[in-house]
Order: sequence, then structure tokens, then C-alpha cells
Amino acid sequence: MRVVVLRLGHRPQRDRRITTHVALVARAFGAEGMVMVGEDKGVKGSVERVVERWGGPFYLESIRAPIPYIKGWKGKVVHLTMYGVPMGTVMGEIKAGEGGILVVVGAEKVPREVYGLADYNVAVGNQPHSEVGALAVFLDRLFQGAGLDREFQGRLKILPDPRGKRVLDLGLQ
Amino acid sequence: MRVVVLRLGHRPQRDRRITTHVALVARAFGAEGMVMVGEDKGVKGSVERVVERWGGPFYLESIRAPIPYIKGWKGKVVHLTMYGVPMGTVMGEIKAGEGGILVVVGAEKVPREVYGLADYNVAVGNQPHSEVGALAVFLDRLFQGAGLDREFQGRLKILPDPRGKRVLDLGLQ
Repeated sequence: MRVVVLRLGHRPQRDRRITTHVALVARAFGAEGMVMVGEDKGVKGSVERVVERWGGPFYLESIRAPIPYIKGWKGKVVHLTMYGVPMGTVMGEIKAGEGGILVVVGAEKVPREVYGLADYNVAVGNQPHSEVGALAVFLDRLFQGAGLDREFQGRLKILPDPRGKRVLDLGLQ
Repeated sequence: MRVVVLRLGHRPQRDRRITTHVALVARAFGAEGMVMVGEDKGVKGSVERVVERWGGPFYLESIRAPIPYIKGWKGKVVHLTMYGVPMGTVMGEIKAGEGGILVVVGAEKVPREVYGLADYNVAVGNQPHSEVGALAVFLDRLFQGAGLDREFQGRLKILPDPRGKRVLDLGLQ
């Protein structure tokens, strides 16, 4: 299943850390890449460093305008919003069939048009919380937990440990 | 199941938004409250506004030192860290039995001692991503999705909608 995350409404500086978290969650939970509106060197640098050290494939792409991108998407468009329908009621439909899934994640204000263009406006709970948390849980459920099991081909690899930190650095071998 | 989130290593200003997201995820996904080290009026204000408008119960408490708090916790201590053991391998044990669950979520650097004090060092994936995403998925799986179904007694309530925003304001009735 091909999944791309579209991050809307990024405000440079102010949203830098949150957008970076959104991108890293997208990567860790199984999306192939993230598209964001506008450029932010901070976000780009952080994501590139993670991909370089911990592996890919994962890309970060900047676009100018989200609406044409959404209109041009071949596949389903899922907009995560606290105002949407409960995730559980549409997850089966979203998973079914062919084509990629574009997961749209907004910052503070999302243009009204996005609600109309999305095939699904989906709530990860109808309470205010976090686009980072919403994306993580949505992807976790979409991939039925398997998104997290993806193997990355990076230089660094964690050896899970019950008590400490063990990291294998393949660059040193 | 009683769950409290402990947020370690909050740096005022720099971590304000991320810590606020951690708190709102804790609330939305079923924790009874969040304890943080240090005070931050920005975080406190944001969380209080959400509780006031969208309902509780949910508390935010500030403490000075995390180690005595962890030592004094009656129940299990689960530290979320990318270096830990895969969530799936210990979730059954964590859920079993009585007592509360303290979920410890760090910022950049977590004192070594925390790894030793935790009953479980748990990885929500062994890849770098986000403490917000990790907490959301951990709580979602811990409550088997039911954390999100919790009803809040607030003034505002969303009426889930496939196309727009519908909010019921009980204060206006």
C-alpha cells in the first residue's frame, strides 16, 4: 500500500519542530514520503539527517500549492481532522482497493476546500490533540501495526534492549 | 486502568508546543493526567483551556524532580524509548494485573537512572520519530482503541461530519 503524507499550513520557525515530528512519524510508520507546502531548511535538514543515518527510502518534497496536488493525486485522499467521522467507521473502505493513499495533515487552519476535496475526513478521536499523534495512530491502524516493522537500510540500527541503549553502527564495520 | 503520563526534560519555550501535544494526547487517549518536571505557563494555559472547553477530568501537575516521583509510583513504570524492547512483546504483561501505569516520556536526554527504574523500557518502533506519536500509539494499543472512545463532559462537543465542522456548544443552550 502506497502512502504519502501531505503536510498543510506549515509556518516556518513556529511549526518547525511539529512538522519535523510529522515527517519522522510518516517515515517510521510506513509512509513512502512527505510533501509539505513551502520550504523549511530546518525540517529538511533534520529529516535528511535521519534518513542518512537510519535509512530510507523516504523523501521530503516541497510544493507551492496543496490544492492542485490534492486534485492531481491518483488514489484516495484522507484528511485527518477532529471534525471528521470516527476512523473505525471508514478504515475498511480506505484500505480496500487499489491506488495510493494521500494522508492530509493540517496545522491550525485548513482551507475549507480541503474538506470537500478529501474522499474521507477522518477523526482520530473527536477531541483536540495533535496532528503528530493522529497521524501515528492512523498509520498504525492503517498498516495494522506492520508499518512499524518495516526494515530500514541505514548505517545505524538499534538492538532492542530492556535496560539501556545498544546501537549497531554499520559504518564502523 | 489508571494511567498517568510523566513528561521528562521539558525545556521552557523550546519544548512548549511538543509538551502541549504530549499532554493533549495523554488526555485524548485515556490518561487521567500528566505530570511534568518544571512549570510552563504556556503549556498549563493551553491544557487548561482545552479542559475548560472540551471537558475533563484531566489534570496537569508540576513536580521538581522525576526520580523520587518514579520511585514513589505504586504500579508499573513504562518508559517509552526507541532503544527499548518492541511494544508488542511486553504489552500483555503491562496490561495484566492491578495498579496504575506510569508512562514516562522523555525529551532529548533521559537520565540513565530512568532506564534502570522503569519496569519496562518500551520501543514504539526502533526508529527515531516523536514522543507525541509514540505516546499516542502506545496508549491506543494499551486501551485497545477504547481510550479514544472516552466521553468528556465539556461545553463543546463535535458532531462527526463527513464534509465539514459541526460543533455543539452546550454553553449556548
